Amino acid sequence: MSVDERREQLIAVALELFSRRPPEEVSIDDIAAAAGASRPLVYHYFPGKQALYEASLRRAGRELSARFEEPAEGPLSERLYRVMGRYLDFVQSHGPGFAALLRGGSVAASAGTSAVIDDVRRAAHDQILAHLAIPAPSPGLRLTVRAWIANAEITSLEWLAERSVPLEELQLHLVQEFVASLTLTAAREPALAAELSSFFADERPDGPTGRLVQDLAGLFAVPGILDAVTALTAGAPTTEAPATDEPASAPVDEPSAQATEGWAATSHE
Amino acid sequence: MSVDERREQLIAVALELFSRRPPEEVSIDDIAAAAGASRPLVYHYFPGKQALYEASLRRAGRELSARFEEPAEGPLSERLYRVMGRYLDFVQSHGPGFAALLRGGSVAASAGTSAVIDDVRRAAHDQILAHLAIPAPSPGLRLTVRAWIANAEITSLEWLAERSVPLEELQLHLVQEFVASLTLTAAREPALAAELSSFFADERPDGPTGRLVQDLAGLFAVPGILDAVTALTAGAPTTEAPATDEPASAPVDEPSAQATEGWAATSHE
Repeated sequence: MSVDERREQLIAVALELFSRRPPEEVSIDDIAAAAGASRPLVYHYFPGKQALYEASLRRAGRELSARFEEPAEGPLSERLYRVMGRYLDFVQSHGPGFAALLRGGSVAASAGTSAVIDDVRRAAHDQILAHLAIPAPSPGLRLTVRAWIANAEITSLEWLAERSVPLEELQLHLVQEFVASLTLTAAREPALAAELSSFFADERPDGPTGRLVQDLAGLFAVPGILDAVTALTAGAPTTEAPATDEPASAPVDEPSAQATEGWAATSHE
Repeated sequence: MSVDERREQLIAVALELFSRRPPEEVSIDDIAAAAGASRPLVYHYFPGKQALYEASLRRAGRELSARFEEPAEGPLSERLYRVMGRYLDFVQSHGPGFAALLRGGSVAASAGTSAVIDDVRRAAHDQILAHLAIPAPSPGLRLTVRAWIANAEITSLEWLAERSVPLEELQLHLVQEFVASLTLTAAREPALAAELSSFFADERPDGPTGRLVQDLAGLFAVPGILDAVTALTAGAPTTEAPATDEPASAPVDEPSAQATEGWAATSHE
């Protein structure tokens, strides 16, 4: 093996070990043994375990960032769904060892590891903004994207620890939460509304956004919910706020056409 | 000063210093000087800077958890809004020094600091579930609450670094994002739908949820959006998916009553 090949091989072996176990449970001897190398040879390439840990984290970061690459084709939610599939696959294979680092409780945390994590978050952020294709994204939209990335990180780490829902559900839910966050941001920022219109027009009924809309339609068909929500619009016929400390009585059903008039009548122009 | 008083005073002084600067920029000498104590006296109480850092972080964690306490009175979004006001006030006063720790890039991170952070997150999670008052919350709902806590953490840390939006906006948006996440979770989990009905019935038009609903109503009044969304419901009159790779053409306007029939017709019962 050449010097470069040996170095890359040691990083690959270290990444494999560090992906499975926390850094305090991986020794230079473990890495040497798994690489078929001697301990002095490992030290010849890396000054110590921390350097090897950071090199393997850098490689993991590059691998993860590469998974964010996605052609700008098809409905946005379906692109994001494919990206999340690759991301969650990565979390499954590399997450166990790096979870403590991401949660802020790893002894191996350093300025070096922090820089790698920041780079990956920035790559995710930039990819999403590129797919949104919105010229000059507002600070509010950038914050929405960053918050959603944090959501994806934490949710997938929680999932890794408990696996309380099927992975495919998580994949779908994360995408749908992005769609919801984007819609909320557009509701606050009129300049985004036109973008949202073409976003929804590009989506398909059987994609993540379509399924979200159908689930919400099902929810609002549950007696009482649409009426309670409609009562919250300022221009709605029934603007009387219910008593706040008492249990809510079921609101009287109204024809949904009338309920919608209340929604549509409230314009923020 | 008694032994206990002196100990508490040192922690208070350390917390003040560690809240403003990263731990590597605070020395035992700084703490001794600010406390009007000698360096040996500080070492008499604490074996070193890390121990003092962890003690001050524990106190910060207790202070923060206490801010989550809120009487179970009034609309839920208004309770959460008050809590977020106190939380963001804490972030402003203590965040600068602990931001690196929460972001996972602090040299002072340890099993001890990790335990404190986990305790605070758990306190936030338990408080929210207590206010929701939902018996036996599902794994999906718990995940939603945890993800939203992560959202609040990251968003407020980002805000601290950039202050790109007014703090009051952030306070409102975080609460509204919780309401949206809760609604999404209920859309996926029919058992939650009844809870959501009484949640909305308790809300007021001028509260965070009311303002969110009004903003969304304004958004859906923008030409094209409601129609594009309605087209995504399986039972809608226009279920034809638009071509996905081409820019969306503006959908034809339809009376909103008809659009709503599409929504309401899609039931998941």
